Amino acid sequence: MRIKVINPNTDEQMTESIRVTAERCCEKGTEIIAVHSPIGPQSIENYFDEYLAIPGVLQEIIKGDKEEDIDAYVIACFDDPGVPAAREITDKPVIGIAEAAMATMRFIAPSFSIITVLDRSKHMNEKLARELGYSEVLRSVRSTGMSVLDFGKNHAQGLAALERESRKAIEEDKAEGILLGCAGFVDFAKEMQERLGVPVLEGVTPAVKIAEMLVKLNYKTCKFLSYSFPEVKSFIGYDNAFSDVALFKKR
Amino acid sequence: MRIKVINPNTDEQMTESIRVTAERCCEKGTEIIAVHSPIGPQSIENYFDEYLAIPGVLQEIIKGDKEEDIDAYVIACFDDPGVPAAREITDKPVIGIAEAAMATMRFIAPSFSIITVLDRSKHMNEKLARELGYSEVLRSVRSTGMSVLDFGKNHAQGLAALERESRKAIEEDKAEGILLGCAGFVDFAKEMQERLGVPVLEGVTPAVKIAEMLVKLNYKTCKFLSYSFPEVKSFIGYDNAFSDVALFKKR
Amino acid sequence: MRIKVINPNTDEQMTESIRVTAERCCEKGTEIIAVHSPIGPQSIENYFDEYLAIPGVLQEIIKGDKEEDIDAYVIACFDDPGVPAAREITDKPVIGIAEAAMATMRFIAPSFSIITVLDRSKHMNEKLARELGYSEVLRSVRSTGMSVLDFGKNHAQGLAALERESRKAIEEDKAEGILLGCAGFVDFAKEMQERLGVPVLEGVTPAVKIAEMLVKLNYKTCKFLSYSFPEVKSFIGYDNAFSDVALFKKR
Amino acid sequence: MRIKVINPNTDEQMTESIRVTAERCCEKGTEIIAVHSPIGPQSIENYFDEYLAIPGVLQEIIKGDKEEDIDAYVIACFDDPGVPAAREITDKPVIGIAEAAMATMRFIAPSFSIITVLDRSKHMNEKLARELGYSEVLRSVRSTGMSVLDFGKNHAQGLAALERESRKAIEEDKAEGILLGCAGFVDFAKEMQERLGVPVLEGVTPAVKIAEMLVKLNYKTCKFLSYSFPEVKSFIGYDNAFSDVALFKKR
Amino acid sequence: MRIKVINPNTDEQMTESIRVTAERCCEKGTEIIAVHSPIGPQSIENYFDEYLAIPGVLQEIIKGDKEEDIDAYVIACFDDPGVPAAREITDKPVIGIAEAAMATMRFIAPSFSIITVLDRSKHMNEKLARELGYSEVLRSVRSTGMSVLDFGKNHAQGLAALERESRKAIEEDKAEGILLGCAGFVDFAKEMQERLGVPVLEGVTPAVKIAEMLVKLNYKTCKFLSYSFPEVKSFIGYDNAFSDVALFKKR
Amino acid sequence: MRIKVINPNTDEQMTESIRVTAERCCEKGTEIIAVHSPIGPQSIENYFDEYLAIPGVLQEIIKGDKEEDIDAYVIACFDDPGVPAAREITDKPVIGIAEAAMATMRFIAPSFSIITVLDRSKHMNEKLARELGYSEVLRSVRSTGMSVLDFGKNHAQGLAALERESRKAIEEDKAEGILLGCAGFVDFAKEMQERLGVPVLEGVTPAVKIAEMLVKLNYKTCKFLSYSFPEVKSFIGYDNAFSDVALFKKR
Repeated sequence: MRIKVINPNTDEQMTESIRVTAERCCEKGTEIIAVHSPIGPQSIENYFDEYLAIPGVLQEIIKGDKEEDIDAYVIACFDDPGVPAAREITDKPVIGIAEAAMATMRFIAPSFSIITVLDRSKHMNEKLARELGYSEVLRSVRSTGMSVLDFGKNHAQGLAALERESRKAIEEDKAEGILLGCAGFVDFAKEMQERLGVPVLEGVTPAVKIAEMLVKLNYKTCKFLSYSFPEVKSFIGYDNAFSDVALFKKR
Repeated sequence: MRIKVINPNTDEQMTESIRVTAERCCEKGTEIIAVHSPIGPQSIENYFDEYLAIPGVLQEIIKGDKEEDIDAYVIACFDDPGVPAAREITDKPVIGIAEAAMATMRFIAPSFSIITVLDRSKHMNEKLARELGYSEVLRSVRSTGMSVLDFGKNHAQGLAALERESRKAIEEDKAEGILLGCAGFVDFAKEMQERLGVPVLEGVTPAVKIAEMLVKLNYKTCKFLSYSFPEVKSFIGYDNAFSDVALFKKR
Repeated sequence: MRIKVINPNTDEQMTESIRVTAERCCEKGTEIIAVHSPIGPQSIENYFDEYLAIPGVLQEIIKGDKEEDIDAYVIACFDDPGVPAAREITDKPVIGIAEAAMATMRFIAPSFSIITVLDRSKHMNEKLARELGYSEVLRSVRSTGMSVLDFGKNHAQGLAALERESRKAIEEDKAEGILLGCAGFVDFAKEMQERLGVPVLEGVTPAVKIAEMLVKLNYKTCKFLSYSFPEVKSFIGYDNAFSDVALFKKR
Repeated sequence: MRIKVINPNTDEQMTESIRVTAERCCEKGTEIIAVHSPIGPQSIENYFDEYLAIPGVLQEIIKGDKEEDIDAYVIACFDDPGVPAAREITDKPVIGIAEAAMATMRFIAPSFSIITVLDRSKHMNEKLARELGYSEVLRSVRSTGMSVLDFGKNHAQGLAALERESRKAIEEDKAEGILLGCAGFVDFAKEMQERLGVPVLEGVTPAVKIAEMLVKLNYKTCKFLSYSFPEVKSFIGYDNAFSDVALFKKR
Repeated sequence: MRIKVINPNTDEQMTESIRVTAERCCEKGTEIIAVHSPIGPQSIENYFDEYLAIPGVLQEIIKGDKEEDIDAYVIACFDDPGVPAAREITDKPVIGIAEAAMATMRFIAPSFSIITVLDRSKHMNEKLARELGYSEVLRSVRSTGMSVLDFGKNHAQGLAALERESRKAIEEDKAEGILLGCAGFVDFAKEMQERLGVPVLEGVTPAVKIAEMLVKLNYKTCKFLSYSFPEVKSFIGYDNAFSDVALFKKR
Repeated sequence: MRIKVINPNTDEQMTESIRVTAERCCEKGTEIIAVHSPIGPQSIENYFDEYLAIPGVLQEIIKGDKEEDIDAYVIACFDDPGVPAAREITDKPVIGIAEAAMATMRFIAPSFSIITVLDRSKHMNEKLARELGYSEVLRSVRSTGMSVLDFGKNHAQGLAALERESRKAIEEDKAEGILLGCAGFVDFAKEMQERLGVPVLEGVTPAVKIAEMLVKLNYKTCKFLSYSFPEVKSFIGYDNAFSDVALFKKR
């Protein structure tokens, strides 16, 4: 089984962390193809970043289906950028790490908080949680005030900030689980869990495992109605990456 | 890994179907212990049945932790009877088949309908879907008008009824996935999927796979707050099955 | 008129308090039959307790219909355990004290808070309030940190804790009414009301009065669809208490 | 005990029907004072009618408190016109017939539909049901297409229209209870119930009984925050009916 | 174009402030007819005030259509009193200042708080915001504790109180826009905006501009179903202001 | 005043229709700069199209701020693609045509339906309406089954399909207003309104008028928190269109 894990930003170091995390949790027979987006921002902290990251993600999915014989895709950013579009252009399972983390947490805790990077990013997490039906169980979104890149540079300070905000989420907001709201936090989950005593999940691990499950069970994305293959039409720009979109339906 | 799959009703034939389904989908290293509740109703179609099935489910979980070295539990009835209580008395993962089926379907379809047995059972499915946050994506709950036991007796008629109601769900209600809303329907999923062309899930398979995932990742139920072990107190009746509840905390 | 008030736990002292409260508020022509569950936990503070209390409640209702010529039932625990099942097995009115308290409060206050026993019990109250449509008006659920049995042992300390949390609910959460979220609190309502100056309700009194109202008006539970009598089927265990369930339909 | 039942429109015949209904259901010791609004529309079928009916209702409440020694008020129109304002100007219980009917129905049926007069009136019923927290259980609002005054003129045709729409609500919308959504329908409830076989409630009866209950228990409207007595200020017009509003606080 | 701006209370000074604000923002070709209600309260701070203000508002709209050749109406109180009734009796656009302010704010900020006068008034704002679909974006309603008339008397103290509560809304509740929740606050918007650095809107200005827009585009209120002209019927009282309501349909 | 109206797809004919519509409704002093996206799909009918259209929209906004002295932006596609990101990169007002149409309709009708192109597009409209708070008033989304490009080719057939679906929305779903859910429908609004007799809005006109309003009032997008300018970071690809994103903050 080949699972392609796409880091929607262009940061190599984060892609490497994601790859290590994905390989650590996957089955022996699973091959992880970890890539980052060929175009887009260095990190994703706002809607501008998110939207500019999506075309690169979609390119990687098209490439995955055409050239790489991929069985399932993981989109490794906690805003789940482009997931509905990705589900249109392939019938292979596509999993966002935020939706995977939230769905998994619900099996072991009745409520949770998300710890994110910047104050501004909270809007995106709250919107996504609401869309996915978690309004009643999301206790809070708390931010560390550190950017994605700050975390990359200063591991110890990042861990301290995550712990501080998580404790507030648990004690003040009564969260019974902590979701690490950035793919850049994959390295912190284990230690955080030990420190806090409540479930602490990053999203890459659950997403990879769910992808494996769907592939094994041969579950495919519904191609009736909303997620059917895109209509054939002309595309301009993107170095012609999407100009042969007509081919979708042929596959 | 040892996963105990508990059929909350007392029907042997259904337990056997569930066992076969669980064993078909699990990993090689997974041992399935399929049991039915020692006390309770022959089938679960209303709240009365559901509540009388729960004590037996809880007994099986206590026994599983005490005597059987179980790693995770699946409660194999589409009403997820007793799931919150089960999560209180063990820190091993507990998965209801309805919550597993709904969570899994969401990764491959943006909406779904549930096909259940009797008209009266719709109330329970709607309530559960709402509690779990699926109000916006649940297109409809449709019933076949056949009881659980009717299905056991007449496979062909059951399949026809399921197909008929599923087609209405797809065509009239615009459902993009079908959930088979009874553990007694495990045998129908594959053929239904072929006939309908949209994802068709029964819940036992997703629940077993999610249980496997949680065990492998060593994710445990949160023991802070809502799901902490029950307080020590005296219990009367139930042939003393719950009288040593004080022991929970010792483990 | 004969109203059976069922304490779902097995505590005699609490049953006696409930009986006194019910008799104090009922009409002259009303006879109160106060009982506690024959099987189950000594107190109800979590889902485990709740589910193990339900079969005993259902036994008492079946006995009430068969042997005691009961006109209506009150289930006297603030989690309303088993109410939907109880409505299936009898066409006599069945009233939970939480639903009665919330419905009554709404006629005299636009918002309210619930004061409960333990932190963990808040989850149950919030879930019930949401199910019953009170999300918008429930200001908070606050807990005293004292168990049900602690309250029984130490009246003065219990009253102080209830007052302290109620004042926080009024001042910080802007609650305009206080619901005492445990049948063990029936003795505190009058004094609390005097101290706080906002409406303070325990649930037994409203539930008994609503039961009286429904009986006088000859309003019966709807037997079409969701609450129709349970289907005939075999039951195992429970000392055969439910084995003649087939008789429901005959009545 | 003296309960004032206020018909917010100016129709004498409807006031008389309401009075008969209230007296039929009340206790022996209860005196029903049934009046209609001194100013306003002949019937209430839209927001214009509703708002013009409210000042007359408020006048009757002020008069009730000042001159008539009233213990509780019932506002007998299914739009519950002016209920929050009424709760501000008196601390005696004020009950709207729609809120009373919906709260009562919930104790005997898990869902309901409302049958109203005109198509246009549905908007008001849906809005009120949503405000009161009944969105999930309101199956539909159906209209007969007959005006309030048509019903007064043609009893048989009215009954037929109500039955026709109620049957659709039960069969097509799966309503498990029927609320007669107009105070002009009080005479139809008994016969409708017999014909339909599901609970059929008009609102006057539940409202009177709930008013009696609140008076007996000495429950008063919360005077902290939202429903505290109105601030002292000058009023113009209304033949000085509200010019001594300053007196509220003195009482 | 002639826009009638109706102050629903009877305060001349506030009407004058509203007129100045409306004239400052309107187009050259727009004539502002600013009036206050002929009957009703001096200010609106609770439901009692609100309901007694509505008949005067409706009178002014009827007069506007009959005698003044008005093109659109603005109801200048932040509770939007009588808006649905006003939309029934005219097909000219009717705009409430609260709905205008909330709709406008949403184009420039993803969330907002409302600053109102008294604690008690918060209930009305929350209810209106919920009805209009702003539950998810309303961060808080905060009150200054000063009455409408206090603001009129003490400009500096009012400004200080508004600033204090707005800062709390921004810093503690994370509001990204501030709505001044009283027509008496029109004079404060500009200075507040400068002090706070986030968008600060009073409602009169957006309402006048939206009214202008609707008139220019010749958009009229839908006369199908809910807002169709009221049915012809007799009215008592109100000095016969509504007795020729039958004329609506003729126009 | 200079308003830039951006057609997010690359279709020249549709851009021209949009330009004509915008110029028809705008003030004399308003200059309309109508452009289409430099990169992206020929039409937008699914999430894939939508996401690939957004980078081009953002490029046009950056260009508008840097080179064209634009005062406000209209994004002329009924999915409002990229609106939150657009609000981050400029402090000039940004208006999506769907949000403008829905907000405007609410001032003249209490409910509405959206008529869209393909069945699959309904998912996007429902999601957007829910996000914006219109769940309660959206009666239905109905589709014509014709693609965007089909409409461009066959005006008469398109009009007939729109009328057919609109009539169903009015008669079956009780919609009191019709929103034309595609920027390609701008030419149909006037004739549709005449045929249907309820308000019919396309979104370009309301969006342009709201943009004019915001500019005149000098209302700017909130730059505190969610919509603050994007953080400085490196971008790859897009022919360096976003590589000087650091400049945002300088402006």
